[in-house]
Amino acid sequence: MNRDCSGVLEEIADTIDSRHGADPSKSYVAQLFSKAPDGMLKKIGEEASEVIMAAKDVANGSGDKSHLVYEVADLWFHSMVALSCYGLRPEDVVAELARREGVSGLVEKASRKAR
Amino acid sequence: MNRDCSGVLEEIADTIDSRHGADPSKSYVAQLFSKAPDGMLKKIGEEASEVIMAAKDVANGSGDKSHLVYEVADLWFHSMVALSCYGLRPEDVVAELARREGVSGLVEKASRKAR
Amino acid sequence: MNRDCSGVLEEIADTIDSRHGADPSKSYVAQLFSKAPDGMLKKIGEEASEVIMAAKDVANGSGDKSHLVYEVADLWFHSMVALSCYGLRPEDVVAELARREGVSGLVEKASRKAR
Amino acid sequence: MNRDCSGVLEEIADTIDSRHGADPSKSYVAQLFSKAPDGMLKKIGEEASEVIMAAKDVANGSGDKSHLVYEVADLWFHSMVALSCYGLRPEDVVAELARREGVSGLVEKASRKAR
Repeated sequence: MNRDCSGVLEEIADTIDSRHGADPSKSYVAQLFSKAPDGMLKKIGEEASEVIMAAKDVANGSGDKSHLVYEVADLWFHSMVALSCYGLRPEDVVAELARREGVSGLVEKASRKAR
Repeated sequence: MNRDCSGVLEEIADTIDSRHGADPSKSYVAQLFSKAPDGMLKKIGEEASEVIMAAKDVANGSGDKSHLVYEVADLWFHSMVALSCYGLRPEDVVAELARREGVSGLVEKASRKAR
Repeated sequence: MNRDCSGVLEEIADTIDSRHGADPSKSYVAQLFSKAPDGMLKKIGEEASEVIMAAKDVANGSGDKSHLVYEVADLWFHSMVALSCYGLRPEDVVAELARREGVSGLVEKASRKAR
Repeated sequence: MNRDCSGVLEEIADTIDSRHGADPSKSYVAQLFSKAPDGMLKKIGEEASEVIMAAKDVANGSGDKSHLVYEVADLWFHSMVALSCYGLRPEDVVAELARREGVSGLVEKASRKAR
């Protein structure tokens, strides 16, 4: 199993960023950008549903774990497309996650509820 | 802006993994595990909705981008909790994304449709 | 099985409408209104996820159908709260569904794609 | 505005029910049945996202209310397809909603949490 995430998300984000202005008939990402916001964002709702169903299949013993990984990859990919659409990067998300690191889950939840 | 994701997702996944068997009253992640699958997975649907709404606010000029980053971080975090619940890691997701790298978006979409 | 929907949705919508301005500490609907739009709308994403999971349980034989009915009721209820928030009624939704009646599914799908 | 829901949901459900075994190339509903559970259910996640986005547009003044009605109709329609797939009817959902009628929102929420 790969134990190193370094560089991959950044590289994918570079590729996504490079699709701004590309021909929607030749690039799936450019197609999504051309449908923003709603047509692009609804994919996040759809992919989240697919993650949930793949996880249910693993939970009840009928699904394989690689399918769950596949669906989470789809969800993260479409999240990165939305980030790129608004000038943001996965590094921003990872920085936000790092900021929370060390914060105990319950404290974190409390701080979120307080927002 | 942070331009390096290396290590952060792995470290957060280590922390999440360490919560298996922890006291749900003291750890938010253990709470989620205790409600798996449905109570844990529905958070993914909820967080996806929050990403969509935060992105809509950015799109119409009423929302700030840091809120969108915050919500994507929440979505990825809860995805990682589900991965951990079934013995999976963000490295698996990143490896899947790397596998697709170099694949043009439209080819990728076609291959997904063929599944 | 009840074979008559008449009046029920209207009555529930009347009750929901009557909660505008009510005390959020005494009415769940008023609580949702007080969190609108995001805190109210994210419930729709959450309830949709619960419908999906309940249906998956029925599909794999581990869940009972009454749970699926329960979750669809929750989804429709929270949809009606959002409708009421913006001065709309379930009758409007039913009128839209009636308008489509007689339209074959594939024609309907095509007309939606053309929008 | 239509102020009477009676009969419409029942009639639409009859039409949906009649699509079991129909040719997926000629009926959108039969197409959905042929993709059940996942391909049918993910539409519910997608339609819920579209409801949320349409409501956000109404909330910020940029969207029209008829679009929100349209998206809720889509969500309810796809819910009814899932119900039909598992031998259920909108009358079952309406009966569940009627059962709750008279129950104050906060009591209802508490009873749901206790489940």
